[in-house]
Amino acid sequence: MKLVADNLHIINPVIQKALETLDPRPIQEIVARCEKAGADAIDINTGPLFRNPEKTMTFMVETVQSVSNLPILIDTANPKAMEAGLQANKNSSIINGFSLEPQKLEKILPLAKKYKSDIIGYLLYPDSRVPSNASERCNLAIQILQAIQNNGIDEHHLIIDPVIVPLSWQNGNQQAKEILIFFHTLPDLFGFQVKTIAGLSNLTSGLISGHGNMKKKLLIERTYLPMLASAGLDMALFNIFHNQTVEVARACKPLISPRIFSWAEL
Amino acid sequence: MKLVADNLHIINPVIQKALETLDPRPIQEIVARCEKAGADAIDINTGPLFRNPEKTMTFMVETVQSVSNLPILIDTANPKAMEAGLQANKNSSIINGFSLEPQKLEKILPLAKKYKSDIIGYLLYPDSRVPSNASERCNLAIQILQAIQNNGIDEHHLIIDPVIVPLSWQNGNQQAKEILIFFHTLPDLFGFQVKTIAGLSNLTSGLISGHGNMKKKLLIERTYLPMLASAGLDMALFNIFHNQTVEVARACKPLISPRIFSWAEL
Repeated sequence: MKLVADNLHIINPVIQKALETLDPRPIQEIVARCEKAGADAIDINTGPLFRNPEKTMTFMVETVQSVSNLPILIDTANPKAMEAGLQANKNSSIINGFSLEPQKLEKILPLAKKYKSDIIGYLLYPDSRVPSNASERCNLAIQILQAIQNNGIDEHHLIIDPVIVPLSWQNGNQQAKEILIFFHTLPDLFGFQVKTIAGLSNLTSGLISGHGNMKKKLLIERTYLPMLASAGLDMALFNIFHNQTVEVARACKPLISPRIFSWAEL
Repeated sequence: MKLVADNLHIINPVIQKALETLDPRPIQEIVARCEKAGADAIDINTGPLFRNPEKTMTFMVETVQSVSNLPILIDTANPKAMEAGLQANKNSSIINGFSLEPQKLEKILPLAKKYKSDIIGYLLYPDSRVPSNASERCNLAIQILQAIQNNGIDEHHLIIDPVIVPLSWQNGNQQAKEILIFFHTLPDLFGFQVKTIAGLSNLTSGLISGHGNMKKKLLIERTYLPMLASAGLDMALFNIFHNQTVEVARACKPLISPRIFSWAEL
């Protein structure tokens, strides 16, 4: 299981300011810390970038690459920013991502073919509604696969994201179970080992900060992650500075790997 | 998922001495601590009790019940000790356990009918060999179920134990995976929701004590437990004084329960 840092997020005021002023240092510092903390890849979440999409994303990708050779996930809904990021990137990059939303099918998906890039397909309805169970996710996954094939993209470039929802939603824990069921079903559904990713931080969003709540968030993260890992998850996206979650993620690897276990790996 | 304390084990010199001298106090103290630490049931592992099996087991069960009303698992291969324990027990008790070993089929299994008790069935070959994969476990589970039915025991009294093996075995981590696959298969195999138990401590046995090794053991425990829980495990048997494992076990419950999740439960 690969660990993807979601730390480079526009919601972080430090990142937001760095992007506005085009100051590389705070970004470089965070990326270096992510790599040190055990990240296997870095998600660059710039949001939609209404102003200067190309310039800003190019700056962001170049800044990340000035300190790291890790694969990059370019995480924006803006097709112009996405293409600029793909052009600027010198290492492996992943388009994050598309869904059945018409705008994304039309503007984002073709970039995967043009740049021979992996692309994350979110299991969402065309109007961005979240599916409510494993069976709906299977239906959407088939449609996502068909979209990939219809665009002449090699199906091995597809990475499925089942869309983890907050536990605070009314059906939140039911959804957590349905996602595990979906992952168990997916290889048979597709007939090949499709790659998968999931955003773990989503699970605990909506829990307001406060005494003991961060402890609860972290406990839930490091409890759900082994469930996802054993259900077949390939890439886990989360705050890589949560070092206990990283520790558990690393312990998942030998438990689900066919290689002979060694205590020295832990 | 219910948490079963394996702390009352003859391997502990304190317990061994208390049993030799019939001193209830050290046992009572450990049981009280187990209950406080979150145990839902207490496993009484006395070993085979070659000397005074009835007297010793009666003392043990009465001592546990003098401070706790928790269900008891009577964990001995000695049929005389087992029956004495079942007779002495006033609360719910579980026979731990039987397998396809002829001696156990003949002497232990009939006690489940006589005392209308739940009984743990270990998936082991008649010569006590451990099965090597999920498929072998399925075959053994069917034979265990047939033994239950042949003895006129209600199948809902059966609790299946797939036999976790140490990760230090050559195929240890493969076995860890196979057990998860087995748990996922079991409900369909039996056609009803059979109860299950697993001894988590087995996973990390064989790792010699030493600097950092206890930390690794605990990390592996709290990583594998959510995998077992999401695969459908009903009862986890482990050292209930491992409080981080208990914390994770509690966090598993809302994630796999159909009830509406509440952060207040954690």
